[in-house]
Amino acid sequence: MSGEEWFTERCAEGGSAFSLRIEGKLHEEQSPYQKIEVYQTTHYGKLMVLDGCTMVSTLDNFLYHEMMAHPVLFTHAAPRRVAIIGGGDCGTLREVLKHPDVEKVTQIDIDERVTRVSETYFPELCESNGDPRAELLFIDGIQWMKDAQAGTLDVIIVDSTDPVGPGEVLFSGEFYAACHRALGRGGLLVQQSESPLIHGEIQRRMYRDMTGAGFSEVQTLFFPQPIYPTGWWSATMAARDGRLDGFRDADAESRPFRTRYYNAAIHRSALAAPEFFNPCDT
Amino acid sequence: MSGEEWFTERCAEGGSAFSLRIEGKLHEEQSPYQKIEVYQTTHYGKLMVLDGCTMVSTLDNFLYHEMMAHPVLFTHAAPRRVAIIGGGDCGTLREVLKHPDVEKVTQIDIDERVTRVSETYFPELCESNGDPRAELLFIDGIQWMKDAQAGTLDVIIVDSTDPVGPGEVLFSGEFYAACHRALGRGGLLVQQSESPLIHGEIQRRMYRDMTGAGFSEVQTLFFPQPIYPTGWWSATMAARDGRLDGFRDADAESRPFRTRYYNAAIHRSALAAPEFFNPCDT
Repeated sequence: MSGEEWFTERCAEGGSAFSLRIEGKLHEEQSPYQKIEVYQTTHYGKLMVLDGCTMVSTLDNFLYHEMMAHPVLFTHAAPRRVAIIGGGDCGTLREVLKHPDVEKVTQIDIDERVTRVSETYFPELCESNGDPRAELLFIDGIQWMKDAQAGTLDVIIVDSTDPVGPGEVLFSGEFYAACHRALGRGGLLVQQSESPLIHGEIQRRMYRDMTGAGFSEVQTLFFPQPIYPTGWWSATMAARDGRLDGFRDADAESRPFRTRYYNAAIHRSALAAPEFFNPCDT
Repeated sequence: MSGEEWFTERCAEGGSAFSLRIEGKLHEEQSPYQKIEVYQTTHYGKLMVLDGCTMVSTLDNFLYHEMMAHPVLFTHAAPRRVAIIGGGDCGTLREVLKHPDVEKVTQIDIDERVTRVSETYFPELCESNGDPRAELLFIDGIQWMKDAQAGTLDVIIVDSTDPVGPGEVLFSGEFYAACHRALGRGGLLVQQSESPLIHGEIQRRMYRDMTGAGFSEVQTLFFPQPIYPTGWWSATMAARDGRLDGFRDADAESRPFRTRYYNAAIHRSALAAPEFFNPCDT
């Protein structure tokens, strides 16, 4: 291995580490919020790292971004007004904008530098940033949500970093209450929720806090995400009112856009919970 | 990280590496076939490594072993006679023996030392080795399959190492032809088939070679496996004759044994192919 360079992310709570072989570092800066690095890897394309944690790779980000956008949008009856909290790399935004019925997407990421760096190194993720339906704000997402007019959003996507550091406040009952208030009838919230294998405590807390904030039903989506710890990831979806029973299968089947991972069968498969998974066990 | 010890497996073809933090090495030997190591990890329990490749960890082996055994057994109409090629750690054998209708399981792993080491460090995987229905042979699995009486097996499970080194010959048309001959009417073959994300060429070759050996239909199962490269794994299932359309859902629902990952919904979900997956594209 002599002469080879590697980037390594250690996962303290999992006792594991994931490394990608790199050709070099393309970018490094300390923004007001976090350290942003970009590497050129040998096999995963480019890699963005925030405060030492892998965020996005060219090779596998489609898994995460498609699963943050399409299941929730095909579950809502008629999503027109969408907010993305976090998501500064703009990959989720691009997927949301593939839905022709979406009329407005507001993305609120506190760190403008993440978006500017993504525009440079992941231009394919930012290709829809100029869409007239897209509004990019670089302010505090929690305050924005608290200030939002009640009942004005159909879907909220929380595409945040881990529940430590800047992302921590996005995993709180106070934030979920603000989301619940901002959603209209039939509204849905979805949030990335870490690994099913090693972060069960986080998922249990989310179920408890989302329910406590007034959401009527909570459901987990499972999908692969190789560059994140364990390679197995989840998103937690919550309904403002009513039930989470199924999705618009026919619309998902006949979607008028291309995906690389998502399809109706994958959507159904993401809803299958492993036998061990019991997020309501407190 | 000073003072911490780690075991690292590098995946050359993926440009990635996976590491587990360890407390120490419990065992090391060079068998006639491969180097066998066992580590005590901090978070994944014990870890068995063959020729430098992670094989089994206490924490996550249930994902792999359950998915190698239950989908194929609940797809076959009435599996009674099963052969496992490889599988020396005996985890797949344990899962197969949970099926009360299985009358005989012959496990053929060329390396007896893997089983002996597993008996010592993974006793839970070997708890059914004394089952009167189980026969453990430590001979060449390919020769055994060629010598098997035609039409005498219902299910063949190829639980092998990667298609390099000792496992390579198990990914060959010659071996698949021997399997096809040994299977009876309605017989099924399933083989671990690497990562959907980075080993597409292996899966395409398996589809081609299994079909070339006379199998009438081939299907892929997808599941998480954190300690293997990308954390996302697959198994390829092939029907000796007839179609692969569904499985014994009701029997899977009412299975008279415990699992930790597998259930009927997970079985269905494992059959959903990502949009990009096209193993017949040659």
